[in-house]
Amino acid sequence: MPDLDVTAELALAAQLADAARPIALQHFRTGLRVDAKPAHEFDPVTEADRAIEARIRALLAEARPQDGVLGEEQAETVGQSGRTWVIDPIDGTRAFIAGLPTWCVLIALYGPDGPLLSIIDQPFTGERYSGVLNEAAWLEHAGSRQPLRTRSGVERIEDAIVSTTDPGLFAGEEAECFSILSQGAKVRRYGLDAYAYAALAAGGVDLVIESGLKAWDVGALIPVVSGAGGVITNWRGGPAHEGGQMLAAATPQLHARALDLLAPAAR
Amino acid sequence: MPDLDVTAELALAAQLADAARPIALQHFRTGLRVDAKPAHEFDPVTEADRAIEARIRALLAEARPQDGVLGEEQAETVGQSGRTWVIDPIDGTRAFIAGLPTWCVLIALYGPDGPLLSIIDQPFTGERYSGVLNEAAWLEHAGSRQPLRTRSGVERIEDAIVSTTDPGLFAGEEAECFSILSQGAKVRRYGLDAYAYAALAAGGVDLVIESGLKAWDVGALIPVVSGAGGVITNWRGGPAHEGGQMLAAATPQLHARALDLLAPAAR
Repeated sequence: MPDLDVTAELALAAQLADAARPIALQHFRTGLRVDAKPAHEFDPVTEADRAIEARIRALLAEARPQDGVLGEEQAETVGQSGRTWVIDPIDGTRAFIAGLPTWCVLIALYGPDGPLLSIIDQPFTGERYSGVLNEAAWLEHAGSRQPLRTRSGVERIEDAIVSTTDPGLFAGEEAECFSILSQGAKVRRYGLDAYAYAALAAGGVDLVIESGLKAWDVGALIPVVSGAGGVITNWRGGPAHEGGQMLAAATPQLHARALDLLAPAAR
Repeated sequence: MPDLDVTAELALAAQLADAARPIALQHFRTGLRVDAKPAHEFDPVTEADRAIEARIRALLAEARPQDGVLGEEQAETVGQSGRTWVIDPIDGTRAFIAGLPTWCVLIALYGPDGPLLSIIDQPFTGERYSGVLNEAAWLEHAGSRQPLRTRSGVERIEDAIVSTTDPGLFAGEEAECFSILSQGAKVRRYGLDAYAYAALAAGGVDLVIESGLKAWDVGALIPVVSGAGGVITNWRGGPAHEGGQMLAAATPQLHARALDLLAPAAR
């Protein structure tokens, strides 16, 4: 897509993430708010999901009427430009309802061959992870902007910090392969959803392994991880942007070792 | 302890937490820093642990020379006042090394019968959870201060968000009891260490269940949880401040149900 104006599209993505922040925070930790409704009257994460997607769709309808929009909450809007915005208004709904600061707003711009640029935004901490596919990724936080780089030099599973959202989501052979891999790792972390990929881009987590992902779960992960120098594929080593099985690694060596261990369950 | 000046001791605890913040943040996510040393040259979490405990001990030696100090890093200082400061400089070392915002600095003031007041501080998000035993708890964040209240109305395990740091740490019958309980819960969260108790005080998490805790792990949890209206005991329903098995619940009803399910493994 040679006519992509990366700067303009990143600015729009940031505008969408800015619009999502106050809506998300209005519905987060509502138990501590004096104006909170009783718990049985509404579901804060569903309210936040719907309100954010509606707001982002309204902004896109004005700014990019030719682009498509794919989100979790509403039917897909098919575009005429060959570009599609893929939105997950609240990724990590369990963290959100538990009051934990590891849910994210996910925004990705796809071309015909997959995601081109994206944002993983955490409104409560104010962290914004942005990426351009295979080129660059950076973190904006507390007024500063830093380039993101995955951890270098981690080549063996036994030196790696491994994350998955829920080991109970792996079925049959997947569960066996993951168990062997994760039991051999240095440290295991759970329940992070997209935030695990942001932590990988920032040099904290070294491997993220998941299955059963949806298209709107994965689009925003790929530019941030690849832009930070990480490797992100499906379990066969191919493109990951259609969802399903996902493997993200800090280094090519670690990616290759994980791919070997997951091969028996790769689809 | 009728001569306890709660306001003065809380102010001192806040001063200790203030002193810890920049030291902790200096060692957090060092991979993103231009002045970071190569990974093999040092261990950032151990450096942070030692530097924070040394700084807090120096401040206490000046401000409260008669008080004792118990920390993870140095030998216990026995005091003459009947009061002891119990410190965990970095609770949640795995989260710390993975770059996740759920580690905490723990500071508690004990009298002869256990903790009286405490702080659970998260320097990266800027959240400070403070509590006075059985009386009050509050959260300071982004310039505001809010009273903390555990979630009301959650009485059944199947409605509860349950957290434990690592289900692999339960041995034998403990593991069986925890598994039955957690499989019956609405949502499970892992890997949070002290931050789970802060989330419980804030009305997010409803149950926290752990085993094998040390004295410096638990002191800061009790005033914050009890001050927010939660129930925090060992698995026999007795005082939890010596460590070991820990059960914290948002409501007395939920505490009673969990106590029943954990009874076969209670020590």
